[in-house]
Amino acid sequence: MKMKNILVIGGDGFCGWPTALHLSNLGHKVSIVDNFARREIDIELGANSLTPICSMKERLQAWKEETGKIIAFDEIDVATDYDQLEKLLASLKPDTIIHFGEQRAAPYSMKGSYEKCYTVENNISATHNILAAITHLKLDSHVVHLGTMGVYGYDDDGIEIPEGYLKVYIPGDDKQIYPRDILYPTNPGSVYHMTKSMDQLLFQFYAKNDRLRITDLHQGIVWGTQTAETKLDDRLINRFDYDGDYGTVLNRFLMQAAIGHPLTVHGTGGQTRAFIHIQDTVQCLALAVENPPERNGKVKILNQMTETHTVRDLANIVSKITDALIANVDNPRNEAAENGLRVCNKTFISLGLKPITLEEGLMDETQEIAMRFAKRCQVNMIPCVSTWTENQRPGLVQKPLAA
Amino acid sequence: MKMKNILVIGGDGFCGWPTALHLSNLGHKVSIVDNFARREIDIELGANSLTPICSMKERLQAWKEETGKIIAFDEIDVATDYDQLEKLLASLKPDTIIHFGEQRAAPYSMKGSYEKCYTVENNISATHNILAAITHLKLDSHVVHLGTMGVYGYDDDGIEIPEGYLKVYIPGDDKQIYPRDILYPTNPGSVYHMTKSMDQLLFQFYAKNDRLRITDLHQGIVWGTQTAETKLDDRLINRFDYDGDYGTVLNRFLMQAAIGHPLTVHGTGGQTRAFIHIQDTVQCLALAVENPPERNGKVKILNQMTETHTVRDLANIVSKITDALIANVDNPRNEAAENGLRVCNKTFISLGLKPITLEEGLMDETQEIAMRFAKRCQVNMIPCVSTWTENQRPGLVQKPLAA
Repeated sequence: MKMKNILVIGGDGFCGWPTALHLSNLGHKVSIVDNFARREIDIELGANSLTPICSMKERLQAWKEETGKIIAFDEIDVATDYDQLEKLLASLKPDTIIHFGEQRAAPYSMKGSYEKCYTVENNISATHNILAAITHLKLDSHVVHLGTMGVYGYDDDGIEIPEGYLKVYIPGDDKQIYPRDILYPTNPGSVYHMTKSMDQLLFQFYAKNDRLRITDLHQGIVWGTQTAETKLDDRLINRFDYDGDYGTVLNRFLMQAAIGHPLTVHGTGGQTRAFIHIQDTVQCLALAVENPPERNGKVKILNQMTETHTVRDLANIVSKITDALIANVDNPRNEAAENGLRVCNKTFISLGLKPITLEEGLMDETQEIAMRFAKRCQVNMIPCVSTWTENQRPGLVQKPLAA
Repeated sequence: MKMKNILVIGGDGFCGWPTALHLSNLGHKVSIVDNFARREIDIELGANSLTPICSMKERLQAWKEETGKIIAFDEIDVATDYDQLEKLLASLKPDTIIHFGEQRAAPYSMKGSYEKCYTVENNISATHNILAAITHLKLDSHVVHLGTMGVYGYDDDGIEIPEGYLKVYIPGDDKQIYPRDILYPTNPGSVYHMTKSMDQLLFQFYAKNDRLRITDLHQGIVWGTQTAETKLDDRLINRFDYDGDYGTVLNRFLMQAAIGHPLTVHGTGGQTRAFIHIQDTVQCLALAVENPPERNGKVKILNQMTETHTVRDLANIVSKITDALIANVDNPRNEAAENGLRVCNKTFISLGLKPITLEEGLMDETQEIAMRFAKRCQVNMIPCVSTWTENQRPGLVQKPLAA
């Protein structure tokens, strides 16, 4: 394997941090950029990571002590400071730029006008600034972007979701049938997911017009907290979000189970979603870095997920392990009550990904994270109080849980 | 016809100003918002409108003197000042918001990183702020947005371009065929056109999630300068751009003819484009205002164009009228040398639009605008010096014309 010079934008976050460590461990030269927006939003929301995460300085020091490897760090807001970004790229000339620098919580993106506008401006400008700077500097950098399965929407109509592109047939007015390979028509379910759909158009244009090499990873919901690298030292621990905005469904179930509260299922729990363990995420990122697309005008799109479950099934699995009860509450999202989901993920499997399944990994997660740090839990932060439409406001959809 | 309360965002611009006057003339209550970005870019580029345009204050005073009608004005940058926009909408509660508030020149959007980032940030934030504010305030406002034919791209493959949506057939993995009505897959040719494609995703989401009523007008290249209303008084005159960034192909031909220079055709001139006269544009806007979509979760998309021509044909038409010579120069754009284009525009025709054709209107335009104001022309501003890729820089694609 050839050592690459890799810049991880958003390298302080839940996916970015373990990815940076994993790539560093593999022998790549890794630099991190972050603006600490995720930590600031914790302060804004009064939320916290269940796991006690260290400062970037302590994290990098611990990594150096454990492995002898050095990761560089620059605090830059790539969405608002194009000039600093361009300057860094000009000096670094990275082989690969991994772009995690986006606001990534759907509920947060739906809270109100401020959060909607922030999510759109931050995510679109971050992505576009990176593409414009690479183009201007004529860099050879391969961009690897973390997208989401959510851009596809959750229509259940007998079609397996392909990897980004859909083969369709168009009847011409000359009675001929014209086959075309199009970007899968997106149907995002939140402002956050919408920004990832818009990112796709940015990638499509810069791949076509400027022949940039871009890989877009449409990721499922990530579960798990630790990777081989973050387990090396407590100071390297990854974040675990359980609040109503940033905590994904599985984390909130584990947290509820750990504090002896019923698992709150939104609606019927018939929503099917795609999942992947954080350890598999960092493996996928390494595989994406090693397998850039040709400079052929087309974005490489991969589905980064390993299994699908309904929310109801998840609750049952967690309940089986923990003996927690299950309670159904109103669904704050504007979505179908029930949907099927079949997803093609053959590229990563063919590249050698060996998935960790929920059934095998969930017990560890429960004991090593949720139970171990349960005393740090702010119980009132668990319910989702962001709603999808103005008619659901004001007031909470779900009552906060009693402490 | 019921009088409506209409806000025209970008009402100082080339399409916005005559639209505001036309709607005011029809008896609607009209308010204008503008940030004068277009006038500032003139200063930045050292360009000017061939026609001497008055200040907004003089324009509104002249309108009042000529017609007795009052148009309100607020200077707000809707892309960067969400709070001011929300405040204005809360007090105005418009029935209709016409959104022209975007940077609209493809060559300008390709000049360099600054112009690319500005175009993306301005256009996306302007559109999104409007949608977020309407949603937050629970207004009933119908949004009418000026999009572009350019979002469709110019693939020539036997399919007439429909009005926004494309009927396709998808083969399922269960051997069934699934018909779907999808947003026409976009293939924008510049950063500017890309922002209009991204706007479509914003509209799709807010129509679906918040049931906003939105009409998106995919407009062809506008030609002509004056409308019935802007002709009423010299102080009401509309702008005429002939510079390489903002001047569209026909204006630059007319300008070249007026100063005795050969008409410069980019490449072979085999590019087919859609056109519409500014007088027809304002009629289309009035028709769109009168015919809002249902609150059915779907954006209403109309093609706002009346005829198609190749650039070569245009040059021949202008040459026939003016005796100008024709010269072929390099094409700065990254596009096919030749393409066909057939466009469905049946909705506006069925609503009563009676198009002004190039053949009948071009002589007036030549005499009343290009010849009359030829002495104000800055000859060195006519060539397009913006290029589509970094490999074409630095240096000019076309030599500036000798004065």
